[in-house]
Amino acid sequence: MSAQLHDAVEVIRTKRDGGRLSDSMVDWVVAAYTRGDVADEQMSALAMAILLNGMDREEISRWTAAMIASGERMDFSALSRPTADKHSTGGVGDKITLPLAPLVAACGVAVPQLSGRGLGHTGGTLDKLEAIPGWRASLTNDELLAQLEDVGAVVCAAGDGLAPADKKLYALRDVTGTVEAIPLIASSIMSKKIAEGTGALVLDVKVGTGAFMKDEASARELAETMVALGQDAGVHTVALLTDMSTPLGLTAGNGLEVRESVEVLAGGGPADVVELTVALAREMLAGAGRGDVDPAEALADGRAMDVWRRMVAAQGGDPDAPLATARETHVVAAPASGVLTRLDAMAVGLAAWRLGAGRARKEDPVQAAAGVEWHARPGEEVTEGQPLLTLHTDEPERFERALAALDGGVDVAPSGTAYDATPLVLDRIG
Amino acid sequence: MSAQLHDAVEVIRTKRDGGRLSDSMVDWVVAAYTRGDVADEQMSALAMAILLNGMDREEISRWTAAMIASGERMDFSALSRPTADKHSTGGVGDKITLPLAPLVAACGVAVPQLSGRGLGHTGGTLDKLEAIPGWRASLTNDELLAQLEDVGAVVCAAGDGLAPADKKLYALRDVTGTVEAIPLIASSIMSKKIAEGTGALVLDVKVGTGAFMKDEASARELAETMVALGQDAGVHTVALLTDMSTPLGLTAGNGLEVRESVEVLAGGGPADVVELTVALAREMLAGAGRGDVDPAEALADGRAMDVWRRMVAAQGGDPDAPLATARETHVVAAPASGVLTRLDAMAVGLAAWRLGAGRARKEDPVQAAAGVEWHARPGEEVTEGQPLLTLHTDEPERFERALAALDGGVDVAPSGTAYDATPLVLDRIG
Repeated sequence: MSAQLHDAVEVIRTKRDGGRLSDSMVDWVVAAYTRGDVADEQMSALAMAILLNGMDREEISRWTAAMIASGERMDFSALSRPTADKHSTGGVGDKITLPLAPLVAACGVAVPQLSGRGLGHTGGTLDKLEAIPGWRASLTNDELLAQLEDVGAVVCAAGDGLAPADKKLYALRDVTGTVEAIPLIASSIMSKKIAEGTGALVLDVKVGTGAFMKDEASARELAETMVALGQDAGVHTVALLTDMSTPLGLTAGNGLEVRESVEVLAGGGPADVVELTVALAREMLAGAGRGDVDPAEALADGRAMDVWRRMVAAQGGDPDAPLATARETHVVAAPASGVLTRLDAMAVGLAAWRLGAGRARKEDPVQAAAGVEWHARPGEEVTEGQPLLTLHTDEPERFERALAALDGGVDVAPSGTAYDATPLVLDRIG
Repeated sequence: MSAQLHDAVEVIRTKRDGGRLSDSMVDWVVAAYTRGDVADEQMSALAMAILLNGMDREEISRWTAAMIASGERMDFSALSRPTADKHSTGGVGDKITLPLAPLVAACGVAVPQLSGRGLGHTGGTLDKLEAIPGWRASLTNDELLAQLEDVGAVVCAAGDGLAPADKKLYALRDVTGTVEAIPLIASSIMSKKIAEGTGALVLDVKVGTGAFMKDEASARELAETMVALGQDAGVHTVALLTDMSTPLGLTAGNGLEVRESVEVLAGGGPADVVELTVALAREMLAGAGRGDVDPAEALADGRAMDVWRRMVAAQGGDPDAPLATARETHVVAAPASGVLTRLDAMAVGLAAWRLGAGRARKEDPVQAAAGVEWHARPGEEVTEGQPLLTLHTDEPERFERALAALDGGVDVAPSGTAYDATPLVLDRIG
């Protein structure tokens, strides 16, 4: 037997019995799992023990560092500008990255956003941008650096070199019922963002039916854990807790959300999307030491739109090309007259997914034009029979299951009923 | 996708979140794991969730039934005699099966004992019998039945057909830190014993340093769980809780224990071995409806010895052949004069293992003659410098680590110190 510091059963038993993992145990088990010396069945037992018995701040911080150490770490210190990035825990209609990255870049802070694809009912930023004809998600590290210096904003696919331990562990957690462990969620997100090399980070932690975290207490715990991890790693990190009981804006779906994002960049668009984009931009600018710049101005005067066009073009996209439209649409009428009091984010997210905007397995394709539009937001008056939702898809056989997902997701109260809107930004942590 | 009743993540999540597994979930997950449709990494996450969140009696009973249903089930109803078996959770110097099986058979009840090999510091019954020249552990089912009818007692290797789900799960638990789950220990033992087809079952649940269960509360919980499982399956089941802080008899090691067992069958042998053998025999006879027969008589008058000789010979062994002796011995002297107040079962078990009596991996060989003899039992007076222990091995380089295992395992108190002996049988459950 070769000499080794620990063995997997010892590490598993320690956490199983409610103990803490030493730095040396964490370093060993993450590295040994990455190289295959700790087996999947051992790591899944450990993940379940972590889910049920927790990890303290030092353990999570060390675990995150070990995942970062499993791969390469990017370095933007040679750039002429400071860097800031944003991560959202995932919501329905959450297209904020699309206007946000060029907006922050227009204010003098570079945004190196390495993104993923969507899985399940929340869309992925790369899937959305791929609705733009010609746009490509893959860049080499040199292309990424050049675009950051030249344009100031990059949204592209994270390479395989960043935190490979996380990639392997995430796939394992997905099939072993161990996704919902706050220490593992937090270290998964933060290991990638810290390895990415951003100087400042703003976390958009979603709360509500359409979010991963359904209740505010869990979302707050996740946010606090991630902010602490960022601080431990020397990255200026803050988190906003934001509402995801209602979907963002008026669209969910890849091309539909690009169109809405361009409206925001043109100075229009839904008020909630504008509000959240500006709020996150302010945090990113402040984190990068440019708290004196007002992002609302850069949105209003077209500078953010200019960066958007250059950002899309730099990755092969044509910002003027028409976006695909779906072959079929189906209109859902308002069931009664009165005040729309609820439009459930999970119902809309599931419907968009089932229409073809999302994927069930990571190798599935997505439709560029599929998704859901809604023609009123909670708090607005609707009239019985008016178009309330429009469903888009290239495959009309998908309508039935999408409609089933929406069943029970809409409430209309008698006209004049007071509507008590949830604030979009619930809290700030950091 | 093929239609299936459940999926692994759903079952894992149910137990992870503290819920009960339905009958249908248990049946599905055990069968799907056995055929490979539930992966090792999924079953290990479930095993950890079971270890930490428990299972209730109905869940454990169903889990046991599902493991039995994964393989064949033996049937002894055609025998002319009732059947009874004994299972020990494993202790040091625990050779009781060797005199017990022929003793019970001599009293008119057939004993079909399907056994395993030892792993770790407790020896395996098959390893002990294999110290007898010529004896073979493997029998076909027909040979087993014929020997049961003809001789009345069989100790042989369990075939691969009994509870294959348990075999697969046991190997997984061993490498994933999920051995110590009472529901899984109980269902593992009972699935094999119920599938074996015995009519009555007596469980010898060991408590103490040399046992798997170190404290009485855990041992009692395991015993009660197993007795309930036996009752649920229609097998007359009782359990004795017995002490394993001190090793049984005066020897630990394969050939050494055969020799001591033959002394017991000849009407001699250490008092504790005789006491436990007779106590377990009474329970087996009572369970099989022969509570009127006195096993002490069958031991005293040589009938048990007659069955032993026929049992050994039926499996190719020569009951008169001399047993191998170790190439090297090493004597440990009493460190002081006075009362021996402690001889630690784990220390002796580890020493015997390190001398070559046991194995670290299931494919390792064992030495027939290796082991430990002790020349006094707790409560007896010893004189400084007298031989206290004799270590036996074929490989003298093993002495050093065996002596290290014994370090701190022996206490001698001033002469005349009162010694408060723990009773051998602590309780009876059933």
